[in-house]
Amino acid sequence: MNAAIEMLSSSSLQQLHNSSISPIYNTSTFRFFYRNLHRHSFSSNKGKVSYSSGTTPIASILSKTTTSMASEFKPQEARVPPAIPPPNPPITKFKIALCQLMVTTDKEINISHARQVIEDAAEKGAQLILLPEIWNSPYSNDCFPVYAEDIDAGGGGSPSTAMLSELSRSLKITIVGGSIPERSGDKVYNTCCVFGTDGKLKAKHRKIHLFDIDIPGKMTFKESKTLTAGETPTIVDTDVGRIGIGICYDIRFQELAAIYAARGAHLICYPGAFNMTTGPLHWELLQRARAADCQLYVATCSPARDTGSSYVAWGHSTLVGPFGEVLATTEHDETTVISEIDYSLIEQRRNESSISESTSGGSLSARRCSEIE
Amino acid sequence: MNAAIEMLSSSSLQQLHNSSISPIYNTSTFRFFYRNLHRHSFSSNKGKVSYSSGTTPIASILSKTTTSMASEFKPQEARVPPAIPPPNPPITKFKIALCQLMVTTDKEINISHARQVIEDAAEKGAQLILLPEIWNSPYSNDCFPVYAEDIDAGGGGSPSTAMLSELSRSLKITIVGGSIPERSGDKVYNTCCVFGTDGKLKAKHRKIHLFDIDIPGKMTFKESKTLTAGETPTIVDTDVGRIGIGICYDIRFQELAAIYAARGAHLICYPGAFNMTTGPLHWELLQRARAADCQLYVATCSPARDTGSSYVAWGHSTLVGPFGEVLATTEHDETTVISEIDYSLIEQRRNESSISESTSGGSLSARRCSEIE
Repeated sequence: MNAAIEMLSSSSLQQLHNSSISPIYNTSTFRFFYRNLHRHSFSSNKGKVSYSSGTTPIASILSKTTTSMASEFKPQEARVPPAIPPPNPPITKFKIALCQLMVTTDKEINISHARQVIEDAAEKGAQLILLPEIWNSPYSNDCFPVYAEDIDAGGGGSPSTAMLSELSRSLKITIVGGSIPERSGDKVYNTCCVFGTDGKLKAKHRKIHLFDIDIPGKMTFKESKTLTAGETPTIVDTDVGRIGIGICYDIRFQELAAIYAARGAHLICYPGAFNMTTGPLHWELLQRARAADCQLYVATCSPARDTGSSYVAWGHSTLVGPFGEVLATTEHDETTVISEIDYSLIEQRRNESSISESTSGGSLSARRCSEIE
Repeated sequence: MNAAIEMLSSSSLQQLHNSSISPIYNTSTFRFFYRNLHRHSFSSNKGKVSYSSGTTPIASILSKTTTSMASEFKPQEARVPPAIPPPNPPITKFKIALCQLMVTTDKEINISHARQVIEDAAEKGAQLILLPEIWNSPYSNDCFPVYAEDIDAGGGGSPSTAMLSELSRSLKITIVGGSIPERSGDKVYNTCCVFGTDGKLKAKHRKIHLFDIDIPGKMTFKESKTLTAGETPTIVDTDVGRIGIGICYDIRFQELAAIYAARGAHLICYPGAFNMTTGPLHWELLQRARAADCQLYVATCSPARDTGSSYVAWGHSTLVGPFGEVLATTEHDETTVISEIDYSLIEQRRNESSISESTSGGSLSARRCSEIE
């Protein structure tokens, strides 16, 4: 297998308060300068990937004028690596189904019910099925370890994903399988599996950003009590386009979406179970923002609302287009939202208002900020 | 002056379509691995900034297992540089005024009118004044070069900013002076000046991302016909907190806001003139997204709507709080929105739902994505 090695820089929002380091400067005005830190060249030859890299060591720059820096700056060379446009998808228009499932405490019932809903959606022409976060188990720290399955063991070790694999093959559909608790050694992850039309597991995304929240009197939940965080973004080529995966709280991290956009994603799927506090505050805002910023499709799928459960999901599974427009959504009851995706709109929107080409002087993201005066 | 040199990585959204490079891989699943590429240590001693850096050359990694990588990963060391928390602001609660000015073709009238509106806002207790994008000139490529002023020359060379300087000193207020066309040599920039309570120019932000849009039948505008793009983010310490500056289209670039957040901003000010197409689509969405993602305040200020002008502004100047909530806004007529900012809410929101601390495994942004399988 050919391997393409890339250095991909991500943005710097995180750990704002996760640092014991004091502010390191108190000058009134900071100026950032950019420079060409690395040069890479790529060549592609009928699918064979080759790669060469000439790396310039990162060096400190002490300069109080931007003039010489600006004239040296070559935005085309400064990306590490250059972002790539989305590939031509295998299909331009297709139907997606967002299965907003009601989840019970009985795993077998959850699996057989999901099976039925997926079959119904495929019957209605859906070629991509998106399930909710934690659809085979109640959403609680007590349940995660009990309902967890060993996905890598397959078969009887993971009846939930075995069902998804079987259906994706028999119905010739792509399934982004929401998420289930995954047992791996002595750890439990919140994991999304993607199955191709051949029934094979194409990707496994472990929720990177665990949901720990404490709004006194409104909402307290600490996933980190029982779950381990994933460590890798997941982007996968399927028969219905290049898809990036995030799970619920992952949607708050714009840099994850930006990485997927830079790697040519057509669509980002976020299975998610926002709640009655964060749902009305941010659920629609965040999915529209990810779509509008990245000019791609965003699909979300929540469990249906069960007011009798300890964690009450917001619902409102939604499909958002590349202008940040809500294309299809629903309220909180169990339902399947079926809507059409048209990838040709991505290019159209980018031609109309290309965020990537807006800067005569080269875009900010094409650069490294290498100096603060 | 002490200088702190930092390497600040920005995200990778840009130039999605600005590249002639073909997709460089066609493997079905990409895995990203993170590693500690650079180590930096900082120390702060009573305002004196010192800095040391031990740089590890970027190297290719060829590994198909994440196990060893994960155990080596130390998120606290991987940030380059570590994000810093906002400093304690000189003031916690204060009034901000968003002056949604009606702009005429007469520059002298525009200046004297702005003077009056600023004096009125200060009279009502506003300690921070935000003006609209291009408030001394009609918003058109024909006008930009004609109305442009040489800000660096000061005084008679720039009557618009001379007025702002005079008022900020006499009224003891901070002014984020919207923007005006700035002449510098043979170039014209779209420039925002920030004046401190002593009347001194504290920062000058030149719009980084020029607004070039072409939506057939709806909206066509190419700022790049006459304007030159700025090259540097601008963040400034004022008597009313640490403020990041963006102008209009800059708001679409989440990485600019992320840089400001990582550098400890309390507030981002975006003078902006969205239009009748992009205004209803994205104006509120983008400011709420920037505020919610970064958990800080966002203030915007538009010109009032003049349906007789060639470019019709959307209006709707708005203040957004650190949960992405609209705190104060208006319609499109000339008005001054006066509202209170309370910086203590920033810490409260981050304590409740700390995006920076959500990841047991270390946040995505703390890492470099260094390999794609």
